[in-house]
Amino acid sequence: MSAFHTLRWIDNGLELLDQRLLPERCEYARFSSADAVAAAIRELVVRGAPAIGCAAAYGIAVEAERLRDCTPDQFAAGMDRAFGVLGASRPTAVNLQWALDRMRASLAGADITETGRCAALLLHTAARIAEEDVSINRSMGAHGAALLPDACRVMTHCNAGALATAGHGTALGIIRSAVSSGKKVGVIANETRPFLQGARLTAWELQQDGIPVTLIADSAAGHLMGTQQIDAVIVGADRVAANGDVANKIGTYMMAVLARRHGIPFYVACPLSTIDIATADGTAIPIEERDAAEVAGYGNLRWAPPGVNIANPVFDVTPADLVTALITERGVLHRPSRAGIRELFGGR
Amino acid sequence: MSAFHTLRWIDNGLELLDQRLLPERCEYARFSSADAVAAAIRELVVRGAPAIGCAAAYGIAVEAERLRDCTPDQFAAGMDRAFGVLGASRPTAVNLQWALDRMRASLAGADITETGRCAALLLHTAARIAEEDVSINRSMGAHGAALLPDACRVMTHCNAGALATAGHGTALGIIRSAVSSGKKVGVIANETRPFLQGARLTAWELQQDGIPVTLIADSAAGHLMGTQQIDAVIVGADRVAANGDVANKIGTYMMAVLARRHGIPFYVACPLSTIDIATADGTAIPIEERDAAEVAGYGNLRWAPPGVNIANPVFDVTPADLVTALITERGVLHRPSRAGIRELFGGR
Repeated sequence: MSAFHTLRWIDNGLELLDQRLLPERCEYARFSSADAVAAAIRELVVRGAPAIGCAAAYGIAVEAERLRDCTPDQFAAGMDRAFGVLGASRPTAVNLQWALDRMRASLAGADITETGRCAALLLHTAARIAEEDVSINRSMGAHGAALLPDACRVMTHCNAGALATAGHGTALGIIRSAVSSGKKVGVIANETRPFLQGARLTAWELQQDGIPVTLIADSAAGHLMGTQQIDAVIVGADRVAANGDVANKIGTYMMAVLARRHGIPFYVACPLSTIDIATADGTAIPIEERDAAEVAGYGNLRWAPPGVNIANPVFDVTPADLVTALITERGVLHRPSRAGIRELFGGR
Repeated sequence: MSAFHTLRWIDNGLELLDQRLLPERCEYARFSSADAVAAAIRELVVRGAPAIGCAAAYGIAVEAERLRDCTPDQFAAGMDRAFGVLGASRPTAVNLQWALDRMRASLAGADITETGRCAALLLHTAARIAEEDVSINRSMGAHGAALLPDACRVMTHCNAGALATAGHGTALGIIRSAVSSGKKVGVIANETRPFLQGARLTAWELQQDGIPVTLIADSAAGHLMGTQQIDAVIVGADRVAANGDVANKIGTYMMAVLARRHGIPFYVACPLSTIDIATADGTAIPIEERDAAEVAGYGNLRWAPPGVNIANPVFDVTPADLVTALITERGVLHRPSRAGIRELFGGR
């Protein structure tokens, strides 16, 4: 188990590890309303598709707690509003909608006049989503670890680690599981501009676990694939379409194209909650464009000249044909296809 | 003509625009010895293959000026040492050796007992190298501009601009020439981690000239190639091998692979001084590895966790088969090959 918690429920309130401050400071911030949780998601206090899902679920739970003494009508209206605010916080990761749908279903099965019991039920559901996330990641980890050689070097992009989930991680969960099973794994972490999740988060959390990691600039990935032995690229996902197209952190597509050129397997670690069978293919996935300031510099430092035009798409789409396999909690889907994905969901 | 000078000779001394300070401050620093110029090259006060060549030539000139009152023996020994120090300042760009070879040939033709005349001759040669660099860039610009559509969007990586040369630029020189000839060119500039030459230098110098530029994170290049009309990728080069393999800023190789996938022409702007017929192919080009601190953060800001292992190769090699054409002052060499390059040099 990691020494940190991405999310934790303490004294009837939600605490999130503020990932904007890592690795310099490891600080938790407390959130007591859906609005505050939505802002935290928007401002990247918490990020990573599964973690966003868990945070949104807890966002509903804190809002229910906040409104428990209201009239049933006020409570129902307030919860409706909370679902809307949280649902609109970020557009690309589908886990957000998936988690909110589960929370909504949970509330739909309750007696809305019993606001206290509704709040307790919603908290229970949020906690289950988070617990399940960890066990899903462990299953994914075991399936994925089996794909790796006994001694290997794995490249990853962004942070699909414990920090991107309720624990263990998706892509890094596979690496953790491989290491636990006695395999020798070295990791190459792309720094992942503009928000530097690779440099700040992946490097940090692997260091915490004593897993060897080498940090590189994103643009060095191709050179390293060509000049060093790299056995696999493993990334997470923000949304996988019904045909296997993968939306993930900007740059993922480039890594997939390069991996194909160099004959390196390209694996995507994704729980079923990240697969959106309602999205036909990658062209239908909304790509979030974030503030230009993220590219103009970092933190309080700005290096781009004032007034320069900036584009900051923060996700891209990797077509299914570049994906060697999707690694899910139900097993490994090689050469992902519409039919294969349908089968993962029990043929639906 | 640009409003700034990458290098200038003033009051019998060399001044370099300190590119580490751009775009925040536009300041010149003065150099009066070969050691100081070598340090400036090493520490990236001046960078870009042609500019490094010019700076090294002037480095010899300032050293000759400094030693002009020595005995001929001291002068000869001092100049020998200066050639050594400057030649070792950076390993990848071949223009450095090319310029030093020219300076050495110039000195070899002089009477070493006349130290004052030697110094004058060396300054004359350095100034000629710099002047020729600008006119070479203008020729390259005209040849390259002819390849671009009347209205187009061009992606570039790093800075192969006026700041990387004695003036006009190589890759950006082509864009400048196209704009001068009435073409409408928009530029997409990759920020170019770790030293951010794209964000700091390319964006700035295009702004100075009023050429539209959009800055992106390096990892967004593939996404933009797939979702926007991009008509060409144009980059500079630090060394082109005899078979057409191109060493250039880390990340160039990835852009070339992506451009090929998207059917976008990939052009390399390189004066003949950048083509090293003594280097058989890309595997023989030394790839500089720079300090880890460049990747750990930027300027005084550090975001990577302390103690993390970092790899920082600052160049990569793009194989000739990914290069649509080399654009030189002698014309455009489509599908560069050993035979084509030999022909550029007059069949030698």
